[in-house]
Amino acid sequence: MTVSREIRLKNRPVGVPTASDFELASVDLAAPGPGEVQVKNLWMSVDPYMRGRMYDRPSYSPPFELGKAMQGGAIGQIVASHDPDYAVGDIVSSMFGWREAFNLSPKAMAAAGPMGALTKIDTHGLPPQTFLGILGMPGMTAYTGLLRIAALKDGDVVFVSAAAGAVGSIVCQIAKIKGHTVIGSAGGPEKVAFLKSIGVDHVIDYKATPDVVAELAKVAPKGIDVYFENVGGVHLEAAINSARPFARMALCGMISQYNEPGTPTGPANIIQAVGKSLRLEGFIVSNHYDLYPAFVKDMAAWIGAGKLKWEETVEEGIEHAPDAFLKLFSGQNLGKMLVKLA
Amino acid sequence: MTVSREIRLKNRPVGVPTASDFELASVDLAAPGPGEVQVKNLWMSVDPYMRGRMYDRPSYSPPFELGKAMQGGAIGQIVASHDPDYAVGDIVSSMFGWREAFNLSPKAMAAAGPMGALTKIDTHGLPPQTFLGILGMPGMTAYTGLLRIAALKDGDVVFVSAAAGAVGSIVCQIAKIKGHTVIGSAGGPEKVAFLKSIGVDHVIDYKATPDVVAELAKVAPKGIDVYFENVGGVHLEAAINSARPFARMALCGMISQYNEPGTPTGPANIIQAVGKSLRLEGFIVSNHYDLYPAFVKDMAAWIGAGKLKWEETVEEGIEHAPDAFLKLFSGQNLGKMLVKLA
Repeated sequence: MTVSREIRLKNRPVGVPTASDFELASVDLAAPGPGEVQVKNLWMSVDPYMRGRMYDRPSYSPPFELGKAMQGGAIGQIVASHDPDYAVGDIVSSMFGWREAFNLSPKAMAAAGPMGALTKIDTHGLPPQTFLGILGMPGMTAYTGLLRIAALKDGDVVFVSAAAGAVGSIVCQIAKIKGHTVIGSAGGPEKVAFLKSIGVDHVIDYKATPDVVAELAKVAPKGIDVYFENVGGVHLEAAINSARPFARMALCGMISQYNEPGTPTGPANIIQAVGKSLRLEGFIVSNHYDLYPAFVKDMAAWIGAGKLKWEETVEEGIEHAPDAFLKLFSGQNLGKMLVKLA
Repeated sequence: MTVSREIRLKNRPVGVPTASDFELASVDLAAPGPGEVQVKNLWMSVDPYMRGRMYDRPSYSPPFELGKAMQGGAIGQIVASHDPDYAVGDIVSSMFGWREAFNLSPKAMAAAGPMGALTKIDTHGLPPQTFLGILGMPGMTAYTGLLRIAALKDGDVVFVSAAAGAVGSIVCQIAKIKGHTVIGSAGGPEKVAFLKSIGVDHVIDYKATPDVVAELAKVAPKGIDVYFENVGGVHLEAAINSARPFARMALCGMISQYNEPGTPTGPANIIQAVGKSLRLEGFIVSNHYDLYPAFVKDMAAWIGAGKLKWEETVEEGIEHAPDAFLKLFSGQNLGKMLVKLA
């Protein structure tokens, strides 16, 4: 029998979540039954979108249940198997993060869709946690938002908020690989230095800038054509203000607003979307997995050519998973925030 | 010699324009010179977008100049001609509204683009002012926004703000002709009655409704797929709140915000655009005149079949043109607001 520790949602947070909204629990995991495999998680992901699942409201993914282990991307290894398609030692990706280990019947879960899937991964020699970051959901989100939703085209000037984050840093680099002028916003000298190291043309340190709207107008005097939105609030206003006619905005997330319990502030200058024929379009990466083969092909080529860099911020141990999650909202991660479980 | 009276912009309005921002002046019009024609305006249009041209700021059309006659759509008749392409009696459309008559050399103005054009109109027996409304810019705006920008498709539930206005009432009717459920918002019992008479399924009288967001959620319990935005503010929030996944919003105008001198309010719930994969897209009809032949063909067929109704609100005399314009912002027009000049 295996003991698996897991993180459960204890309270639905109001405003910014705190450590007391989570609880650590232990469950006894029996040996896997017929058709089941046992997975030991090596890495789990914490992502800003998880905040949305802590509200009890309808959304594109169902709310987390109180008193139960949360869910999220994880990379694990098969440690016991009664399914001939999975061998001990196989590396697998699942949505059963926030726990150290789990049993699952892949055949029985086949009907549950992507949320229940256990996907074998050929790591091609890359560290397995890469498949929670640059080659996983964040990378795919960057690729989809920039190339499909914002429909990047020659000559576009690109503005990216949360540019040093897991998604933003990949957006910046894909745009640079394709020859664009890129402006990135991030908070603090470490992130600024990282963005300069990956070739971002102008970096706005929003924590050191009293007026992001004016600063963007200054560093992009001719305006911007594409905005990759991760933050909301004043960043969206800055993008709208500096947008050239027919600019496109891929709305990926608005982390500044996830914790606002009252009425958040909308972009006061939204009316400019009329006169400048702007397009603002939200997207959820799971609706765009038809792009996945092209994503893997392009990313593998860019990684192979040494054109993509990525950073990770790592907490160790399931007991620190809530801390890792909370740090996303104070911007304490550079690149992909991960929890190493084994 | 002809005396032509005209309306000049006297002051750039701050907030809601008032009569004192305009002045009536008379100019002496010489007989037309070589290559020139003289046009007597029969009708002129007042439109909400003109408020934007009263600001001194770059936009898609240049600001009106202080102390000079304003511009805008007008339908006139040739009263003297030294251009063989124009005969006395021809009905013409131009952007030289806000005046009773003018001289112009069509050949010399050919390089000035649409703003300088004098276009002969075959009225097909319809009243000439129709070409300032249902068959003119407002009709073309409705057609473009609904069919191209919002990409109306089978089964869509359509929400229209300023639904009894020149543009909105055509949007409602095109959507009804195509078999859609249509929800229209307008202010006051006369407009509500008109919208019911043209088959709108649910009418929201926003002046009698304390909470437009809640009211839309009530009359569209399954949500909306298309929003035709003319108003901004709480109407946009209502649309975002009730939007189904993948809803499209054609941003045509935001009349509630045109006169706000301070910081207007943005949609506080814009974050829903991410989770519901919404598309908000602004447009200017002048970028879409490739649709004009299809527009004329469809509209002529629908008018011929008695499927389209339209209303006009008419002021008489150039001296009342500012009043007509101002009434747009207090919602005192049903259908197209026009000024009859002769």
